[in-house]
Amino acid sequence: MVSLPYLLRSENIARIEGSQLLIGDRRVYPFEKRFERCSSVLEIASALKRMVTQGGGPLEVALTAMVFVTEQMKKGIIHAEFGELERAVILLIASRPTNTTMKRTLLALLEELHGKPDFVEQVAPLVEAKKTAFDQLYHQLGKEGSHLIPEKAGVLTTCFAEHTFLLSLAYAKEEGKEIRVFVPETRPYLQGSRLTAPSLEEMGIDVRVITDGMGATFLGTGDANLYMTAADLVCMDGTVVNKVGTFCNAIAANRFQVPYYAFSVSPDPTKLDASGIQMEWRSAEEVTQCMGNPTSTKEMQALYPAFDIIPPDLVTGVVTGKGVLKPEEIKRNFQ
Amino acid sequence: MVSLPYLLRSENIARIEGSQLLIGDRRVYPFEKRFERCSSVLEIASALKRMVTQGGGPLEVALTAMVFVTEQMKKGIIHAEFGELERAVILLIASRPTNTTMKRTLLALLEELHGKPDFVEQVAPLVEAKKTAFDQLYHQLGKEGSHLIPEKAGVLTTCFAEHTFLLSLAYAKEEGKEIRVFVPETRPYLQGSRLTAPSLEEMGIDVRVITDGMGATFLGTGDANLYMTAADLVCMDGTVVNKVGTFCNAIAANRFQVPYYAFSVSPDPTKLDASGIQMEWRSAEEVTQCMGNPTSTKEMQALYPAFDIIPPDLVTGVVTGKGVLKPEEIKRNFQ
Repeated sequence: MVSLPYLLRSENIARIEGSQLLIGDRRVYPFEKRFERCSSVLEIASALKRMVTQGGGPLEVALTAMVFVTEQMKKGIIHAEFGELERAVILLIASRPTNTTMKRTLLALLEELHGKPDFVEQVAPLVEAKKTAFDQLYHQLGKEGSHLIPEKAGVLTTCFAEHTFLLSLAYAKEEGKEIRVFVPETRPYLQGSRLTAPSLEEMGIDVRVITDGMGATFLGTGDANLYMTAADLVCMDGTVVNKVGTFCNAIAANRFQVPYYAFSVSPDPTKLDASGIQMEWRSAEEVTQCMGNPTSTKEMQALYPAFDIIPPDLVTGVVTGKGVLKPEEIKRNFQ
Repeated sequence: MVSLPYLLRSENIARIEGSQLLIGDRRVYPFEKRFERCSSVLEIASALKRMVTQGGGPLEVALTAMVFVTEQMKKGIIHAEFGELERAVILLIASRPTNTTMKRTLLALLEELHGKPDFVEQVAPLVEAKKTAFDQLYHQLGKEGSHLIPEKAGVLTTCFAEHTFLLSLAYAKEEGKEIRVFVPETRPYLQGSRLTAPSLEEMGIDVRVITDGMGATFLGTGDANLYMTAADLVCMDGTVVNKVGTFCNAIAANRFQVPYYAFSVSPDPTKLDASGIQMEWRSAEEVTQCMGNPTSTKEMQALYPAFDIIPPDLVTGVVTGKGVLKPEEIKRNFQ
């Protein structure tokens, strides 16, 4: 069994400790292993909004938050009413509008609990079951992904593609494949240089950090012969939504006939195509600083669209729980 | 007459003061207006190698250095021998291998001076004439470039395209065109956010800083309808060499049928195509830091190819002293 790096061990993503929920602070990793301590759902939602964690992190945090809420109910800190659980779900969903896996998972949980008088007791085992199911899915997708990696691979990625991508590399390495990963730093938050690259280093995988403008360069030389990312959202027509900076690499991969695969634990059946996507614009000030230090004049204006929308013609396949699907195969498998 | 921003005024690029040659330090702008003080050609070449200035800066520095050397000869600091001038040229050329305009300009100067007993006296007026010719060329290219800018323009650029690009925007603005410029920050040195964006702000041109991975995003939305960069080198087949990060945007521009123009004061007749290009790999450690602060773990490996090679099929035209030429028109105009 391959093992996960520090950042992806569940206790380092979110855990309950006493009367607090702790969230691993990905904003300061690898310089510090700090946890954000939350005493209420409002604080948890605020932490998600402030990008304390990202990618699949919010899903794990939100599931843990459900257990946290029931513990608060048992202690009498909040009323043991179903409405309180619904309120928590609404707050959590609103904190990250683009990634809808969290939303759908929480709403499904609410539906399962609806009308049950003992819902307070049922949350923890239900959440545990969902977490286990996601873990199994991660490993399944990791194995599927590993088969897409050539014997001698130069894998380009973007941002921090977490479990599914890292497990793909781990399984491919186990199979003896020769792998180098090219990791764009992923400005402004540097998820690539701070999260992906150190995690790969920890896993013993050959890694090179590059700037966000160099993906096409290494696709062009042939050093990168595969492009793989997570997907914050996959629509029914195969449109992939992922961290801004993904589009330029997907276009370049297409030019050089390098396959582009996105991982998705749950394509969204409610989103038929790109027209239904609620886009997230983040604070422009993030772009004119790097780790808190200004990178331009004080009043400089900037733009920060958080995500790119990758049209299906640039997507070779989506790695899902139902196999590696072509964009046009998503709908009949997930709707 | 349109005016140049602080960074491009010749006294802020290079000037002689007493026994020193001062180079405007672009590494710390806009946070500081500092000058690197050089007392020898060796120090000047070292400053160029350390990227104290960049783009067209080294050409201006190298020309000023020729005058500086003759002043040192007059003061008896170095021998008034032609060999000393040749030695200076060799050192300067070696400091920046990719941009060959400096190389060719210096070699032409040597040739003009060769065999002249009074070469020490002739350097200053010759250099002055060359500087004036370049200034005129910059304005000519600026006017040519301005005609390529649509009435309502969203102009994407990369790095710091200096005189020709900024003058194009200034002339277009003078003509009443509505312009917004999208400036990728250009990691690792941040020439975009530090040099281009503040210069545009100073010129009263609407500017937005973006990260290096966002060019395709704004080309895709249609907000950017023109891509313009400098060129460190243009080959006879129309191949453009420019700062790494240019390729991904040129590929994306091509996908969205957005024209891509590169400015070149002197396509290189000795370079037929990409095969003759000497590529510059810079210190990988630059990529794992931002303005001196580490962006990853201590021993993280990285890659820093300084330039991208853009094949002619992605180049709409090259803005030259002989007009805006299609890639296939370069050779017959410059060889």
